[in-house]
Amino acid sequence: MTAKQIRTVIIGASGYTGGDFMRLAVPHPQIELTGLVANTHAGKAVADVYPHLRMANLPDMVALEDINFDDCDAVICGLPHGTAQDIISTLPKHIKVIDMSADFRLRDTKTYEQWYGRAHDNANLYDEVSYGLSEHYRNEIKAARIIACPGCYPTAALLALLPLVKASVIATDNIILNAISGVSGAGRALKQNTLFCETSEGFSPYAIGSHRHTPEIEQELSRAADKSGSDTIGIGEIEVTFTPHLVPMSRGELITCYLTLKEGTSHDDARAAMQKACEGEPFVHLVPEGVTPGTQHVRGSNHCLIGMFKGKVKNQLIVVSTIDNLVKGSAGQAMQNFNITFGLKETTGLEQLPLFP
Amino acid sequence: MTAKQIRTVIIGASGYTGGDFMRLAVPHPQIELTGLVANTHAGKAVADVYPHLRMANLPDMVALEDINFDDCDAVICGLPHGTAQDIISTLPKHIKVIDMSADFRLRDTKTYEQWYGRAHDNANLYDEVSYGLSEHYRNEIKAARIIACPGCYPTAALLALLPLVKASVIATDNIILNAISGVSGAGRALKQNTLFCETSEGFSPYAIGSHRHTPEIEQELSRAADKSGSDTIGIGEIEVTFTPHLVPMSRGELITCYLTLKEGTSHDDARAAMQKACEGEPFVHLVPEGVTPGTQHVRGSNHCLIGMFKGKVKNQLIVVSTIDNLVKGSAGQAMQNFNITFGLKETTGLEQLPLFP
Amino acid sequence: MTAKQIRTVIIGASGYTGGDFMRLAVPHPQIELTGLVANTHAGKAVADVYPHLRMANLPDMVALEDINFDDCDAVICGLPHGTAQDIISTLPKHIKVIDMSADFRLRDTKTYEQWYGRAHDNANLYDEVSYGLSEHYRNEIKAARIIACPGCYPTAALLALLPLVKASVIATDNIILNAISGVSGAGRALKQNTLFCETSEGFSPYAIGSHRHTPEIEQELSRAADKSGSDTIGIGEIEVTFTPHLVPMSRGELITCYLTLKEGTSHDDARAAMQKACEGEPFVHLVPEGVTPGTQHVRGSNHCLIGMFKGKVKNQLIVVSTIDNLVKGSAGQAMQNFNITFGLKETTGLEQLPLFP
Amino acid sequence: MTAKQIRTVIIGASGYTGGDFMRLAVPHPQIELTGLVANTHAGKAVADVYPHLRMANLPDMVALEDINFDDCDAVICGLPHGTAQDIISTLPKHIKVIDMSADFRLRDTKTYEQWYGRAHDNANLYDEVSYGLSEHYRNEIKAARIIACPGCYPTAALLALLPLVKASVIATDNIILNAISGVSGAGRALKQNTLFCETSEGFSPYAIGSHRHTPEIEQELSRAADKSGSDTIGIGEIEVTFTPHLVPMSRGELITCYLTLKEGTSHDDARAAMQKACEGEPFVHLVPEGVTPGTQHVRGSNHCLIGMFKGKVKNQLIVVSTIDNLVKGSAGQAMQNFNITFGLKETTGLEQLPLFP
Repeated sequence: MTAKQIRTVIIGASGYTGGDFMRLAVPHPQIELTGLVANTHAGKAVADVYPHLRMANLPDMVALEDINFDDCDAVICGLPHGTAQDIISTLPKHIKVIDMSADFRLRDTKTYEQWYGRAHDNANLYDEVSYGLSEHYRNEIKAARIIACPGCYPTAALLALLPLVKASVIATDNIILNAISGVSGAGRALKQNTLFCETSEGFSPYAIGSHRHTPEIEQELSRAADKSGSDTIGIGEIEVTFTPHLVPMSRGELITCYLTLKEGTSHDDARAAMQKACEGEPFVHLVPEGVTPGTQHVRGSNHCLIGMFKGKVKNQLIVVSTIDNLVKGSAGQAMQNFNITFGLKETTGLEQLPLFP
Repeated sequence: MTAKQIRTVIIGASGYTGGDFMRLAVPHPQIELTGLVANTHAGKAVADVYPHLRMANLPDMVALEDINFDDCDAVICGLPHGTAQDIISTLPKHIKVIDMSADFRLRDTKTYEQWYGRAHDNANLYDEVSYGLSEHYRNEIKAARIIACPGCYPTAALLALLPLVKASVIATDNIILNAISGVSGAGRALKQNTLFCETSEGFSPYAIGSHRHTPEIEQELSRAADKSGSDTIGIGEIEVTFTPHLVPMSRGELITCYLTLKEGTSHDDARAAMQKACEGEPFVHLVPEGVTPGTQHVRGSNHCLIGMFKGKVKNQLIVVSTIDNLVKGSAGQAMQNFNITFGLKETTGLEQLPLFP
Repeated sequence: MTAKQIRTVIIGASGYTGGDFMRLAVPHPQIELTGLVANTHAGKAVADVYPHLRMANLPDMVALEDINFDDCDAVICGLPHGTAQDIISTLPKHIKVIDMSADFRLRDTKTYEQWYGRAHDNANLYDEVSYGLSEHYRNEIKAARIIACPGCYPTAALLALLPLVKASVIATDNIILNAISGVSGAGRALKQNTLFCETSEGFSPYAIGSHRHTPEIEQELSRAADKSGSDTIGIGEIEVTFTPHLVPMSRGELITCYLTLKEGTSHDDARAAMQKACEGEPFVHLVPEGVTPGTQHVRGSNHCLIGMFKGKVKNQLIVVSTIDNLVKGSAGQAMQNFNITFGLKETTGLEQLPLFP
Repeated sequence: MTAKQIRTVIIGASGYTGGDFMRLAVPHPQIELTGLVANTHAGKAVADVYPHLRMANLPDMVALEDINFDDCDAVICGLPHGTAQDIISTLPKHIKVIDMSADFRLRDTKTYEQWYGRAHDNANLYDEVSYGLSEHYRNEIKAARIIACPGCYPTAALLALLPLVKASVIATDNIILNAISGVSGAGRALKQNTLFCETSEGFSPYAIGSHRHTPEIEQELSRAADKSGSDTIGIGEIEVTFTPHLVPMSRGELITCYLTLKEGTSHDDARAAMQKACEGEPFVHLVPEGVTPGTQHVRGSNHCLIGMFKGKVKNQLIVVSTIDNLVKGSAGQAMQNFNITFGLKETTGLEQLPLFP
């Protein structure tokens, strides 16, 4: 990289993921935030939308049509699914797109239609797309123009499960993922169930058996299991039980995975596979035996902590994985992918340690 | 009952469960709190230990030796296990004992020793004991002198599972219980991990594969499954996976149960069994399909809400059960058992609706 | 009272104050909730709006026009100001109205217009109105048909200040009230600043110098000071500084009052005046010297705790007053007034002790 | 600075302020943490004490006697008062000391003795000391060997008040400071009142009229008012009312200052004085009129936000100041002073924007 800055536009800057990308981007030495698109807030100062960014020297928010994309090297997309692909498909081809939406995560457009309730109109772009789980798709991310950053839950789940599936140490027919998330996962839109009074002192499951991150986890596990050999494997080969719950905290995601060791495989084998996958990874860490990971220990950072435990039942393996849903689960992984895409050191702008307490 | 009050002593009045029993007992029309034992606080006014009880007209806290048990009809025991049995074994036989400790829950003393790390010195008292899950042991409770109130997690778990096991609608070889609790479950003792700053914005599992409530759940499921016919069945016949997690809230407990329908059994069968078990129960409620129970909707009350859901995986049944750990999980169920024991209306003193928000 | 129930309709049942009145009313031995009006939720079951009331046997929510007010003895009004007076003015005269809105609190209609931004169209009703600060207006409440329940902040402030003003122990020209409230004070309407993620880990002032509860406090202090002798004294005689802040908790209100002792008056005089005012009061309590009241010690109850402290500065008196904003600050005081109005024991239905933790 | 790292030892590394200094120091380009002293944790890995620092490459904790101070350029002291001066007085004179304790804040040793309950045994060191409020003592800090970092409350208070006192726009005889802090201000020691269950849903004042930060604020205001011309002015010239409160959140501090404009001074004058003081300051910001600062908008950062408001009462000025108590109130300001001391860019290692939500 020359000293020349990478001119970056955030589309969907007023949501929590857009806001968190701004927080990380301001001290990033190579990113110049040249445009902040937030249609409903066009014309407002950033501080009017995000008071915690008052001290950053950022341009006002604008409408999409105010951006000249000729002067832009990269787009960070923080839009809802649907809108995301509609806009991404219109961007000039010289622009690298880091998409935090769900639009290009599912490679099978029928699955997309089934779970997201609308047709996928831009299947033709898939040749330029890489799934954006940084640790497992580095080469593909480098080669792609559009990076489909994983969902927050799939990130936490796959960082824990892929090493085990790839090493063939767990059975794939009885995977139960009990997940929890802080309230920021529901976004900044006004909903009764995310009001302070409704959430505080409250814990409840939601979307039981129907959460949209399920097929994404299944797709990636199936690809890893290499059951089909096809590049566009759909869901179905591996099916998981995935139940998310809402917790009275702002940030954090934790998945408790109930797994079964494959016949002839030991806990030590599983731990060794995970340890190997974590070697050299700057952001994924296997904690020692007996240590239980907690969301408070990754808050605000791009780190993922993974713990492995023997269950009381024979051959059971319980794996716990935790991330900050807005960072490693969204804006941080987007920046990690940005760094990979532009050939920067992968940790640039992500050196912050977790904020505790 | 005549108008004569029931003279009741709380031993272990300074813990959260003792405190919550006081809160419920003051407006109870038949209970006269004649003694509040808290050795380390002997001589203090209740308001110095529990400022929220300042407005109640309660006697000062005293040491155990200050109590004349001849003038006492009932003892509520809020002591830690071990100490509880040591003291209960010395009480005069005319006293009804409602024990909130773990000491008389496990009917097999070897299991007790294995999980609680000390010998059970009072197995001879078991003839006078009933397990105190009110809804499933009413007759036994009436006949007993000592009521072993269930643990908080077993209460939430068993209210959800026993109707299904008794009706033989679920498989008993793959029961996974993912549980969470508010911080009050850890008691009022000083521990670093229950400090506000350590817990806030934090979610983490603990005691994976080793929580002491596991054998209690297994014992009761095994008895319900009637696999042995023995009155002192141990653990082992039914084994469960039980993983508790700590949530940044004070009260509330919720268990997400991952179950499998028995061959030839439908979701409707399971729902019918649960519905039947809830009929006429004042405190246990099956919520309609599509409704997800949450801890904030039972807070401060003796109620239990149960939801039943189809998983995405074939034959899977997901059951969610929630209670207030200090009320139905402890002091409230103790009062419910007190009412049963003394022939009072079971809901006396427990008419409070949940406090929301 | 005969055994005959008091047929009570709640108008505005879907807000937090309406919801909390329901919680308290269900176990009240004399109240029969015969109608629950919530226009935007008409036709819904209560459990669909307030899941924590699922176990109560309540009628469905209806629209205003569905109520036959001939069959109604009392109306609890939980509407926003403006709408409240529009509807109350249409109710038949045999109905006792307990109004939790701001519409009949300010006796000077010009002040009302100035602070609430609309004309007061029902000044003619003032003959039937009593201000509803129970402890200080018992006779007036008994004689009135419409009870204007105080705002939550004025309740906490006036219970602390009125005894001191009436006893002429404090200067009235430099009263500074630093107030805080839990988030439920902002109601259940959808606003960005009451989302969990916006409020959690956040503390900030709002409405500095402009909060609508200011003239209400000033009116009552002025009346107590008896500076005018007029029954319709406006604001102006006594002016206060009132600054509210939002705290990341659901319930609770606390006011730190910075006062100056009048020349020739001692701290003991002030404490004696307060002690006298609290004598015999079931819900207002002066805590001993050295004890600091906290919101967590009144939560869910109708109690008010008051603490008195010497400041470091000469002649300074710091008084701290705390209530649950939804109970003593709204629904509980409404019930207390209901009891006064109908000649019931004042504590009926309000016997619950605070919920801690 | 050459590329040579500054070898830095933290004494008192296991407290929250020590922990937060580590969090900030790891990415700091000039700091090499060569020793972490925590006597009660000597021998432990940092991750065993602070799991959120697991991913940092830090040395194990050691006892004080294990440190060779010859190889050390700087000491960060995170000890309690008393112990701090005992140890600082033994350090070799080539070491720069950034002291986060209270031991060298009060220049009058009698005042120290009066408020801290022990003699000040190291008054001789005061020649080498500068008070460490970075924005107001830059030259003194550069010249000193020991930097007495201000208390968290004094930092928030003085950043708001000093510009007004220096510009002579406010009266100094009636300053009321209503302060709040998150729970981390109480430290990591085990105390009942900082348990999650005791603090959650709770707000209460503490140390009314007797908080140790009071004389520190008074000293600095008095020096600014230049009433004595003496370098060792004590308290007394300016007296303030200071009342802290505890809020259920981990981080954050906010002070609502009730002030009176001096005769002949306007709100515009006051705002101009503050604006001028903030000019060029990287961390102190006056927010626009109408904007209310909140703790959630500075969390995790070294920034201070100040808002100025007209009260309803004539000539009243209400100033609101907010910081993160562990950062600008402690570890962050320590690092800012470290940078000043060693001639580094003042913002080095402090570029992180606030973490919101």
